[in-house]
Amino acid sequence: MTLSKLHGIDIDRLMSNIEDYAQYGKNEYGGITRPSFSEEDKKVRNKFINELKDLGLEITVDGAANIWARKKGTGMKTGAIVVGSHLDSVPNGGKFDGPLGVLMAKELLISLEEHNIQLDHDLEIVSFTAEESNDFNLSTFGSRSFTGKLPLEKLKDVTDSTGTKLTDALLEVDGNLDSYPEMYRQYEDKKAFFELHIEQGKRLESQNISVASVDRMAGVYRNNIKLIGESNHSGTTTMDSRTDALTAASEMILQVENVCQEHKNDVVGTVGKANVYPNATNIVPGEVEFLFEVRGQTNKEMFHYVISEILSQCKDIASKRGITMEEDVIINQDPIPLDNDLIDVLNQSAEQVNEPHLTLTSMAVHDAAHMSSVTKSVMLFVKSIDGKSHCPEEYTRPDDIEAAGKVLLQSLISADAKLS
Amino acid sequence: MTLSKLHGIDIDRLMSNIEDYAQYGKNEYGGITRPSFSEEDKKVRNKFINELKDLGLEITVDGAANIWARKKGTGMKTGAIVVGSHLDSVPNGGKFDGPLGVLMAKELLISLEEHNIQLDHDLEIVSFTAEESNDFNLSTFGSRSFTGKLPLEKLKDVTDSTGTKLTDALLEVDGNLDSYPEMYRQYEDKKAFFELHIEQGKRLESQNISVASVDRMAGVYRNNIKLIGESNHSGTTTMDSRTDALTAASEMILQVENVCQEHKNDVVGTVGKANVYPNATNIVPGEVEFLFEVRGQTNKEMFHYVISEILSQCKDIASKRGITMEEDVIINQDPIPLDNDLIDVLNQSAEQVNEPHLTLTSMAVHDAAHMSSVTKSVMLFVKSIDGKSHCPEEYTRPDDIEAAGKVLLQSLISADAKLS
Repeated sequence: MTLSKLHGIDIDRLMSNIEDYAQYGKNEYGGITRPSFSEEDKKVRNKFINELKDLGLEITVDGAANIWARKKGTGMKTGAIVVGSHLDSVPNGGKFDGPLGVLMAKELLISLEEHNIQLDHDLEIVSFTAEESNDFNLSTFGSRSFTGKLPLEKLKDVTDSTGTKLTDALLEVDGNLDSYPEMYRQYEDKKAFFELHIEQGKRLESQNISVASVDRMAGVYRNNIKLIGESNHSGTTTMDSRTDALTAASEMILQVENVCQEHKNDVVGTVGKANVYPNATNIVPGEVEFLFEVRGQTNKEMFHYVISEILSQCKDIASKRGITMEEDVIINQDPIPLDNDLIDVLNQSAEQVNEPHLTLTSMAVHDAAHMSSVTKSVMLFVKSIDGKSHCPEEYTRPDDIEAAGKVLLQSLISADAKLS
Repeated sequence: MTLSKLHGIDIDRLMSNIEDYAQYGKNEYGGITRPSFSEEDKKVRNKFINELKDLGLEITVDGAANIWARKKGTGMKTGAIVVGSHLDSVPNGGKFDGPLGVLMAKELLISLEEHNIQLDHDLEIVSFTAEESNDFNLSTFGSRSFTGKLPLEKLKDVTDSTGTKLTDALLEVDGNLDSYPEMYRQYEDKKAFFELHIEQGKRLESQNISVASVDRMAGVYRNNIKLIGESNHSGTTTMDSRTDALTAASEMILQVENVCQEHKNDVVGTVGKANVYPNATNIVPGEVEFLFEVRGQTNKEMFHYVISEILSQCKDIASKRGITMEEDVIINQDPIPLDNDLIDVLNQSAEQVNEPHLTLTSMAVHDAAHMSSVTKSVMLFVKSIDGKSHCPEEYTRPDDIEAAGKVLLQSLISADAKLS
């Protein structure tokens, strides 16, 4: 079955829905601050659940407080095709990163009903908890929990910077570590996972194309480096008797840049976060913590070569300067290929509805990366204006979103037919 | 008149006094947190004033809340020889930085009485307000106020980070901007200023000598540099399309180190404080603020040459990287020579009482730097253990303090005789 050009989603309804959700956590800079477990997040969760109930869907909140809403199919095929993303935001983020994928899922479900199309599989909407970097230091928390990547034992002791326990935060949004084993029993029920997301880059924009299927998630490596030198008075300590943690860190930060620049077709590398202690005008810094990240967009061998090259240079710098260097690897995730069958579904669907499309690698991690370990998973990217995201200027145009909606609607129909 | 070796200060009384004052603002880490205007500071001020009253001294609290206590001389010479320092501390600081100079002043006054020595000049003790870096961003506030270096108009609008007005904080400790003009009329009355301070370095310790006269205060230059690049997603922004404020800052921080290392006999230079924005794992930093400081221990030409060299390299780095660089010069103070006559008095007095001594440059700013603009001023340094200061481990041994007391007692007698 192929949709006619006239039968897409209702883009006005979807845009108004996105604006509506963007009121929650809106700040004075025009951005959105809505981390999971915040008061604003709780309001949005309730709003979302109520809207899903109004659609007559069966709602489940799993152990990780992921929200699932299910619409029965014809019953001719078992299991569910899942569509979704996340509703949380970074501090002072935008309207689209996350909510677009969740609200599109709802829009697709409504559109299918309006088109009087019932899938053979059940159709399920999901909103994953705490996808963004957060104060519990657990990004993609919901999808990692669902896919069994976060050991229960470790989660019991996790707290945020104010000392709030993750287990308590979870209980407040109907999550519960005790329900984790139950989540793991759901894998066979999930037949496919589709996630729509803004590209957060300029590749689509530069070719003026609305959508791209995503063939691979870049590898991500994050290492929190702690450098310990010696705090001393900035006036009375001669240049030769210093063990300055900040100049050491500076040299390392430049090495991260240099090495990644040398291998710029295979990786990007960033130090986004750095803190100096005691961070006082007149004290030679005794300690610096910084986090370096490498993302590998090609093969895992090159990805790991770059990481080891950076680490070896950092160690040389630390040793030369008499600095103690401690490492804490937060993420070390190889590049993840997405499902070839579903990539084909997306590409063929785009052709069916006459939408030009690209196939791209995702440089950011998304929930689909984790979902791919338990079910066939794929992503569709939609054009970002100026490549901006995680900021108030994040924007995607309605006509691009409409194109994405059309491709996805066709893809759900095609996938429903192709999958067992 | 020369003191016999037996007639110094009462070191036990002084050490017990220092311990007594160290109870105010004592924190759980064993350090002292007693910024000016804090509750603990108010308690210490009251304690100090009461002790001075008990000694029968005439107390004045001036417009900047500096505490002055005066003991009449024979009247054969006019004006006062002033001895003092400050009672405030940095957060989690030590017992000696400041209080040693103030409590020694009191000890000297008592010792002179016990030796039945009355000076021809009046003898005055001073405790300056807010010498340390503080939340009003006004270090050496008391001495800068007294010496007319802080314009009244500007002070009216100063607030701390909680919004408290400086004028209100002052009123609570009996200061008052209205009394500033009265302070300025005191200059002729002050014939000399002596300040005892811990060295905060290792130069005395390395030669195992207790005391040093200070011939000069190093020049201090502080520039708060703000770098504006572009915040972008760390995964989706290619290496070539970044304008990373942190890698730019890193290059500049290394240049500060390099240039100062090249001129290490003339300057020390430090970046002690740096903040990254938004400081998130997955965002290429769009902004970095860092403060660089240069202290010049020789002539002002070399001092300014080093500063201009650093700035010119920073500008090149900013321009090469497409970064906007904003400067905010916080302090630009040339090296200040102290009074040669009083340096001679200290050195000769040390010889008279058989104390080996050095002559050093002070790399830190002290109240004496400002007092030198209105009267003959000098400092005596006493050995710091491990050069540590501004930390709980700050320590100076009683025998070194006793030696300093003997030198100072002799110096007061000599200065009283030499000065008109």
